[in-house]
Amino acid sequence: MKIYPVIMCGGSGTRLWPVSTSRTPKQFVNLVSDTSLFSQTVTRLAPGSDGLDLADPIIISNSRYLGLIETQLDAAGISPLAILLEPCARNTAAVAAVAAEFVGRIDPNGLVLLLPSDHFIGDPGAFRKAIAGAVTVANAGRIVTFGIAPDRPETGFGYIRAGAKIGPSAFAVDSFREKPDQATAVTYIADGHYSWNAGIFLFQASLMRAELATHAADVLTSTQAALDKTVADGPVHRIDEAAFAEVRSVSIDYAVMEHTTNAAVFGPLSCAWSDVGTWPAVGDLQTSSGPVEPILIDTKNCMVHSEQGTLVVALGVEDLVIAVHDGAVLVMPKARAHDVSQVIAALKARDLTELF
Amino acid sequence: MKIYPVIMCGGSGTRLWPVSTSRTPKQFVNLVSDTSLFSQTVTRLAPGSDGLDLADPIIISNSRYLGLIETQLDAAGISPLAILLEPCARNTAAVAAVAAEFVGRIDPNGLVLLLPSDHFIGDPGAFRKAIAGAVTVANAGRIVTFGIAPDRPETGFGYIRAGAKIGPSAFAVDSFREKPDQATAVTYIADGHYSWNAGIFLFQASLMRAELATHAADVLTSTQAALDKTVADGPVHRIDEAAFAEVRSVSIDYAVMEHTTNAAVFGPLSCAWSDVGTWPAVGDLQTSSGPVEPILIDTKNCMVHSEQGTLVVALGVEDLVIAVHDGAVLVMPKARAHDVSQVIAALKARDLTELF
Repeated sequence: MKIYPVIMCGGSGTRLWPVSTSRTPKQFVNLVSDTSLFSQTVTRLAPGSDGLDLADPIIISNSRYLGLIETQLDAAGISPLAILLEPCARNTAAVAAVAAEFVGRIDPNGLVLLLPSDHFIGDPGAFRKAIAGAVTVANAGRIVTFGIAPDRPETGFGYIRAGAKIGPSAFAVDSFREKPDQATAVTYIADGHYSWNAGIFLFQASLMRAELATHAADVLTSTQAALDKTVADGPVHRIDEAAFAEVRSVSIDYAVMEHTTNAAVFGPLSCAWSDVGTWPAVGDLQTSSGPVEPILIDTKNCMVHSEQGTLVVALGVEDLVIAVHDGAVLVMPKARAHDVSQVIAALKARDLTELF
Repeated sequence: MKIYPVIMCGGSGTRLWPVSTSRTPKQFVNLVSDTSLFSQTVTRLAPGSDGLDLADPIIISNSRYLGLIETQLDAAGISPLAILLEPCARNTAAVAAVAAEFVGRIDPNGLVLLLPSDHFIGDPGAFRKAIAGAVTVANAGRIVTFGIAPDRPETGFGYIRAGAKIGPSAFAVDSFREKPDQATAVTYIADGHYSWNAGIFLFQASLMRAELATHAADVLTSTQAALDKTVADGPVHRIDEAAFAEVRSVSIDYAVMEHTTNAAVFGPLSCAWSDVGTWPAVGDLQTSSGPVEPILIDTKNCMVHSEQGTLVVALGVEDLVIAVHDGAVLVMPKARAHDVSQVIAALKARDLTELF
């Protein structure tokens, strides 16, 4: 069965401000190497010699990012099967519905590999092996999620608890768990059955349609209505604005995964995965601070990211993030990396909309 | 007797890097307000209604700063009596010799007011009153230094201990003291006779010539030789390079002040003086962080200086200096402000000469 990668890149995370902005979100920025996470994601899923039957990627995004998508696909030498443009954000249940509908209409037996474009995977081979392994599980009528082997009691991710074994590296899902507090995260690690929820799914298009029909019928029907009015121009499909605005905004986890009896978790994977969610996470991955190497004197454990040739000099400081981009400088302790939202709020309050 | 202000502006302090560089040193930068310290210095000495008989200023600098000097004098509406360009730096004894010679040749009875251009004086009226008071002392045959009333046991300045009273606010100099350690500085403050040495002098041109002839005759004669070969073009006088290079490099303190029996100290002055020597000192004076107000969230006691429209955002940090200028960002604790020299050394080691 053919696998249709459906790559979500419509989000605009702000925790990596000032580099990630709503104009150029994180996935399109060269954060940890000289290509973007989006570019790495599409490249990771290009046809290879490992037998994975992968279709050209389907990109789901917001219309404002079409230029970035086309430029970066072109640079990566990738032809998309389709670029589906959402006129507004309607959360991941709508995206799953769009993916299932779009692929189902092309290939009723097709498998959808739905995944974010803003994660880093250091071992693409291990990741592709996992997909190959999960195909059997998906073909057996499961919505497969991928569990990442946790290496610390991280409180920033959701967790999946594995239940009964249903195949090699495959388990029924015992439960999905929201981001835990520190004490709970420690018990998850000790338990041994928990893995991080990477938000990556593999499923038959037909199965997702059926599950949506059962658990979130309104999302399915309103998405179908919007798709019916989609205007295509070559690979670019613009989903109807008025119709798509009617779709209920809900996550696929709430809408389907927490209710279905057909959820499976594949893993736990060790593929050097990171959600690149905060500046310290960028620091853990980066091979370069930018075009000009910073000068660090008597510093410890600092993370510098600087674009556009600005020289960063740090003297006698510890555990700081120093990020420079496009007329803005951010300085904060790594421990405050989750509070960048406060900066965005301050920028909004000052009406500095061009800066985020 | 006419007072000839001789304003020294050839230095290129680097402790305020990245804003102060050898191309645009501290005295020519709008550091604490929307005019430069140089501009404030010449303006402070313009003719006023307080009866001070001030000549137009004589500027002593390095030839590389001629453009900055002419532009800023013009903007301040000041016509210089002369701009004396040193082809190389030869320390303050040579400057005093140039000043005494140049003024002495114009006006044998003239008084020289020799002063740095990179200090801040918040109360120019009090400063001018002190000069008026010191004129009597200088005319009585003293080299008058100005003592600043110390408000803390600062280790970054030299001190002057006042001896016998010789007039209103005027004392013989008991001794000059180099920058003390903390414990010594504390004893100075407790003693009550010490003031900070601001490096400002008022003297008869003829007296300084005589004192140099007695205590540093070689400096006087080699400076005279260099001045004799000076090429003038309007107010701009270019001191002969080969001849000036022969002048011994020594401070006026070592060469004359520590040996003469004619030193006096006037003060102590309370004129809101600062040497603006480090970034925290800038922070104490600044009325604005730059053209874009920084965003400071959960911060304490931070000092931001940012030019060219860069927005600085600090979150959850304390006691930091964040200075942004011309493609460079400096982040350090205020307590490390005296170590900026290490940054300059690192820039030199990397051959980033365009940056300092």
